[in-house]
Amino acid sequence: MKLSNRISKMQFSPIRKLAPYAAKAREDGKRVLGLNIGQPDIETPAAFFDTLKNYEEKVLAYSDSRGQRVLLDAFTDYYAKLGYDFKDENMVVTNGGSEALLFSLMAICDPEDEVLVPEPFYTNYSSFTEMAGCKVTSFKTYKEDGFHLPSKSEIEASITPNTKAILYSSPSNPTGTVYTKAEIELLRDLAIEHDLFLITDEVYRELVYDDLTVYSPLAYKEIEDRVVLTDSISKRFSACGARIGLVASKNTALINEIMKLTQARLCAPTVEQVAAAALYRTPESFFEKTRAEYQHRRDILFEGLSSIPGVFMRKPEGAFYIIAKFPVKSSEHFCQWILESYDLNGVTVMMAPAGGFYNTPGLGEDEVRISYCIKAEDLKIAVEVLRSALIEYSRLF
Amino acid sequence: MKLSNRISKMQFSPIRKLAPYAAKAREDGKRVLGLNIGQPDIETPAAFFDTLKNYEEKVLAYSDSRGQRVLLDAFTDYYAKLGYDFKDENMVVTNGGSEALLFSLMAICDPEDEVLVPEPFYTNYSSFTEMAGCKVTSFKTYKEDGFHLPSKSEIEASITPNTKAILYSSPSNPTGTVYTKAEIELLRDLAIEHDLFLITDEVYRELVYDDLTVYSPLAYKEIEDRVVLTDSISKRFSACGARIGLVASKNTALINEIMKLTQARLCAPTVEQVAAAALYRTPESFFEKTRAEYQHRRDILFEGLSSIPGVFMRKPEGAFYIIAKFPVKSSEHFCQWILESYDLNGVTVMMAPAGGFYNTPGLGEDEVRISYCIKAEDLKIAVEVLRSALIEYSRLF
Repeated sequence: MKLSNRISKMQFSPIRKLAPYAAKAREDGKRVLGLNIGQPDIETPAAFFDTLKNYEEKVLAYSDSRGQRVLLDAFTDYYAKLGYDFKDENMVVTNGGSEALLFSLMAICDPEDEVLVPEPFYTNYSSFTEMAGCKVTSFKTYKEDGFHLPSKSEIEASITPNTKAILYSSPSNPTGTVYTKAEIELLRDLAIEHDLFLITDEVYRELVYDDLTVYSPLAYKEIEDRVVLTDSISKRFSACGARIGLVASKNTALINEIMKLTQARLCAPTVEQVAAAALYRTPESFFEKTRAEYQHRRDILFEGLSSIPGVFMRKPEGAFYIIAKFPVKSSEHFCQWILESYDLNGVTVMMAPAGGFYNTPGLGEDEVRISYCIKAEDLKIAVEVLRSALIEYSRLF
Repeated sequence: MKLSNRISKMQFSPIRKLAPYAAKAREDGKRVLGLNIGQPDIETPAAFFDTLKNYEEKVLAYSDSRGQRVLLDAFTDYYAKLGYDFKDENMVVTNGGSEALLFSLMAICDPEDEVLVPEPFYTNYSSFTEMAGCKVTSFKTYKEDGFHLPSKSEIEASITPNTKAILYSSPSNPTGTVYTKAEIELLRDLAIEHDLFLITDEVYRELVYDDLTVYSPLAYKEIEDRVVLTDSISKRFSACGARIGLVASKNTALINEIMKLTQARLCAPTVEQVAAAALYRTPESFFEKTRAEYQHRRDILFEGLSSIPGVFMRKPEGAFYIIAKFPVKSSEHFCQWILESYDLNGVTVMMAPAGGFYNTPGLGEDEVRISYCIKAEDLKIAVEVLRSALIEYSRLF
């Protein structure tokens, strides 16, 4: 009764694996500041909960496999404002951005096919490719460059005859990097020259700072049949628990095939879809406020961490993550140690060791991924905990 | 830019593919009675909607990947009453029974591995095995036997060195068959003798008629590490749109590996889980009433259809489906024709041609699957529409 090799090879979430140590610290009466997970603390717009309260159907029925009418319409309007023309035949509603990624990979890749991703990357990109039975390959990006793309030839060195797609996120989880127009055009050129799909994960689209612009390959007509958008309401509206996402593409043949996958799992949750549609009427002021809040937190974290000797990072441009080099040999050891053995005035911190976000073994071992989904005053405390913890740690190890 | 072979090979839902013809019939002013889909019309217990109304959190956060505390507890209590001891480490909450099936297959099977299923079977069993990159194999069951299991040697003839699991549902979609104690013990013996997992899909557990007992391999301690339960609240509580299901097993190694899959897609919808937990406080009288209603409908349908010359079926024992042989050469042609070209007093019917529920090409071509999720008086009308349509059809073709 052997289990599958597929599942044995997969890893547990590097973001969640220190959870037992955090639980123990809490049991011991410590306050644990959670810098590990991308769970926004911003309040979900009330329109979501109001819709739940006012749901009038007596039978909680399946929704259409493609998606609930009202939500498909809301998506069409939202993307139209961004300049993208998505009709029903270009879209399927998914169980979160997660399923959008899984379905895209399943529709594009067979076993032995490769999906090329700039590393470090969102750790579940590996999980979904393993579930789809294909392979992640990667090219390196560097903290010294703020994790922006390397040269065309460096990327091309990682493209093989089996490469079917490039997958990336911008604004990026886990780096906070927002690709420039030139970088998006580089990806466009690579897709054309090497006959690739471009899977663009844009779930952090609105979370960008310093008035930067988010560019998307969706803007380029010459690659419209190559571009697959994966999206989600989770981070945009602080609605992670709704599990509502989307795959969209002008390649209707691709979307039509993905319909087979959506029919197999019947539908995304019905009431959540109706409530998600209501979120798309959220006024622009919500995003302005949210952006201002995250930018403020990013600045606190960036300035605070940068003032700690031996800590290095570039200022991230979007999302709510930083990958920082710490003056430690093993961030995994440090992250566990701080939860198990250190506190400043009863406060400790939980972070994600960055190794799990890299594809190449050995990379990121002295880096941590920190998310800034906690209040500004707590981020200030977290910086001071880390400052004194690193001094103590360097004495001990 | 070829799409994957995996996706090209998959079929669209045979239950939904006649939908455009039904839509056209409705446009033409006909009333279309939907006998094609397992969408219950029984009202969802109000506890579900009350929970949505009273949800008090300000941030719609991720739930735990394994499942929301309150729902895991509800499951533990529910299975304890059935005599099954499931603690947290034995369970993961899934996005419907669909994801429960997909995750079970992914955890057990690698490419080339086979899952053996009695045919006819729920058509998405094929979809999920194709998504998991493994293979469905099948052995035949016969309408003359009410689709009960054939002899041990007939089943064994379909077991190969690549067979990893037997997958079945009882009460069954699409046949309504409820396996006897002897049949469950036959499956138990096969699992032991051929070193197989037994995936038992029990989503229709409460929907069984004539005071029959539903037996489960969960009752046999000697195979407890081989049995994987997939379950769902969809049919039990008429809550299909919630997308809340479960994988459970005493094989904690298996469940632990499945946790990797659940972490990859983060969680099942949070509010729906809380509302689902409330459903598990539904009084037994709800099931008694629901059973009585479906049994009444089954009797109407069985007696009505049986009185039509050339129609054959055994009386189904559970769920809300019948597979019936019709006096036609191609049920696919008949089902499309009746939607396109026939009505009795402005009423026509939509059914699922049964061919899509068989694995062996050519089987089921003169059979339809009919679900009885519409009111008794409409079922009576449907029977009369079919009676007169079959006379007209036999004149034309």
